[in-house]
Amino acid sequence: MALTVRVDRGYTRVLARAAGQGQALARVLASVLAYCLLASTLARAEAAGVAVLPSWQAGPARDAIVAFVEQVTREGASTYVAPAERIATFDNDGTLWSEQPVYFQLLFALDRLRDLAPQHPEWKDTEPFKSALVGDLDGLKATGMEGLMQILMASHTGVTTDEFAAAAGQWLKDSRHPQTGKAYTEMIYQPMLELLDYLRANDFKVFIVSGGGIDFLRVFAEAVYGVPPEQVVGTTLEAHFELRDGIPTLMRDPKVSLVDDKAGKPVGIYRHIGRRPIFAAGNSDGDLQMLQYTTIPRDAGDTTPRFALLVHHTDAEREYAYDRKSAVGKLDAALDEAPSRGWLVVDMKKDWRRIYPDA
Amino acid sequence: MALTVRVDRGYTRVLARAAGQGQALARVLASVLAYCLLASTLARAEAAGVAVLPSWQAGPARDAIVAFVEQVTREGASTYVAPAERIATFDNDGTLWSEQPVYFQLLFALDRLRDLAPQHPEWKDTEPFKSALVGDLDGLKATGMEGLMQILMASHTGVTTDEFAAAAGQWLKDSRHPQTGKAYTEMIYQPMLELLDYLRANDFKVFIVSGGGIDFLRVFAEAVYGVPPEQVVGTTLEAHFELRDGIPTLMRDPKVSLVDDKAGKPVGIYRHIGRRPIFAAGNSDGDLQMLQYTTIPRDAGDTTPRFALLVHHTDAEREYAYDRKSAVGKLDAALDEAPSRGWLVVDMKKDWRRIYPDA
Repeated sequence: MALTVRVDRGYTRVLARAAGQGQALARVLASVLAYCLLASTLARAEAAGVAVLPSWQAGPARDAIVAFVEQVTREGASTYVAPAERIATFDNDGTLWSEQPVYFQLLFALDRLRDLAPQHPEWKDTEPFKSALVGDLDGLKATGMEGLMQILMASHTGVTTDEFAAAAGQWLKDSRHPQTGKAYTEMIYQPMLELLDYLRANDFKVFIVSGGGIDFLRVFAEAVYGVPPEQVVGTTLEAHFELRDGIPTLMRDPKVSLVDDKAGKPVGIYRHIGRRPIFAAGNSDGDLQMLQYTTIPRDAGDTTPRFALLVHHTDAEREYAYDRKSAVGKLDAALDEAPSRGWLVVDMKKDWRRIYPDA
Repeated sequence: MALTVRVDRGYTRVLARAAGQGQALARVLASVLAYCLLASTLARAEAAGVAVLPSWQAGPARDAIVAFVEQVTREGASTYVAPAERIATFDNDGTLWSEQPVYFQLLFALDRLRDLAPQHPEWKDTEPFKSALVGDLDGLKATGMEGLMQILMASHTGVTTDEFAAAAGQWLKDSRHPQTGKAYTEMIYQPMLELLDYLRANDFKVFIVSGGGIDFLRVFAEAVYGVPPEQVVGTTLEAHFELRDGIPTLMRDPKVSLVDDKAGKPVGIYRHIGRRPIFAAGNSDGDLQMLQYTTIPRDAGDTTPRFALLVHHTDAEREYAYDRKSAVGKLDAALDEAPSRGWLVVDMKKDWRRIYPDA
């Protein structure tokens, strides 16, 4: 162990000296050394009984992640990034948990509509509610984005923020996935949980940046992912403050403040985080701009190491297989752009030893 | 030292047992014990050479703060609050730094307008720009809130977020206060810096929640207050994402997304933090709703200890003296409400041993 440490310090000195002799040389050298050190890092960790990303197959995907983290955490290296700047952003649907046959939050919205229907007899005869209440997804689809927004507003607003959180929490507790029979919060990806922990152990600050509703996510993100409410960014509705019988209360209003999807994701990052991430993970074209924003090209004068990955759903047996033509979680433009931008495409079937945590 | 620790543990056991015998008794007992322990805490800290809030005068204001922190951090006590829930929110203008004769950000806006004027010859003859450019504050005032918004938009938008941050950073570096000759970032309150540190040392997560612009604040909040960008909430403008020559960029748009003042402060807290704070500090009626939201009344069924304070500007000699009739930082309704809600009113002249840090 002592020897290894001494050798590492030797590399650091070489790197520091190289940095003095020109950025380009230093960068090349740093990459070479990072990859050389990788094997010893993994070997050392495993010798010490600490598995690194144990649910990831040994191979290029895992190696690329570990090499990146090595680069930015090695003090004295030209690739070192101070902890305050180690911002990592993760999409949720399809990246941290499953999203088929449809986003879980939509299932919540439909169940909640059914609960609220007795107070709204007019819904029986009015679209999109009529289709929604009988579970006619094709009929609902025919009402388009406008219909979907009406469902969202009717099921998600007109209550206090505390009432909404209680309803969502109860639903997550009581409901089961129609195909797997699991609780939705059990359909999270074990390899990604390990990745969150691995980054945090290396002083990254991890945020969720999701097209899903910020309040829906906050109900479970801390317990399930270890991500506190203040590190959750998502699609946001307006709210207003009022004193209700003297009690300071926030009411949810039927107006969108931020659609945190596609080009809205960098805007959400800017609003909530105020720094450009150095690590981003997504799985669909909804994440394209977040990944672009994170991996600003080198020719923009930026020399910070940056990393992005796409979870590619290739495992019809253990989860789902879909990409370019999927109605939910379509991965097309981002998949095309991945090679030229250097994004890691994680092949769920090949790269993950398991999908969900043990029950 | 060993003895003191044993005594503390004894108190903890008493508290735990009392909690089992009824909430009301436990709460009374906890308050009494917290105050009894306070003296020993301060004595111990000072004996160990660690001054607690050294720029605060010894007395009721400092004692109240220390007693609250003792309450929520004492493990096993019924008043204990888990670190994740220890959210503290601070206003900025008039609470962390000075705000007279006018909010410093407005001075930045006016200086920036002058820099941009050559590209806008029409401003010479159009209000509110005409008044703004010649420094006619009365003329500017006559254009009302609408005029002020035009100044804000013209000086704060139409650039990338990086360009804006660079301009604000340069201004903060170059500019001096018209009355003190100090840099604006030197006009911060030493007692409040110590309070931020004291809370953080006790595992509070500290946020700024300001009516000022979120991006302006983020330029200096980390260096000056130790508050990272992701813990700054402020008035927010819209922005949009675009690829500029292939470089992922955010452009600032002339539309307000959130006015983080008055009833907007609880909304900003809800959007960015997603939890109700247990500690809030302000100095004006702009903070009234934040303080109400933080100190939810006990009869709402909430038993968490909660604390709020108002900085009362009473020191015309060392800083400024103003409250109910001030055009900037008016403190009127909140001052009236303080006694019944149990908010601490900090008397700057009596409670602070000094105002600004040593140069």
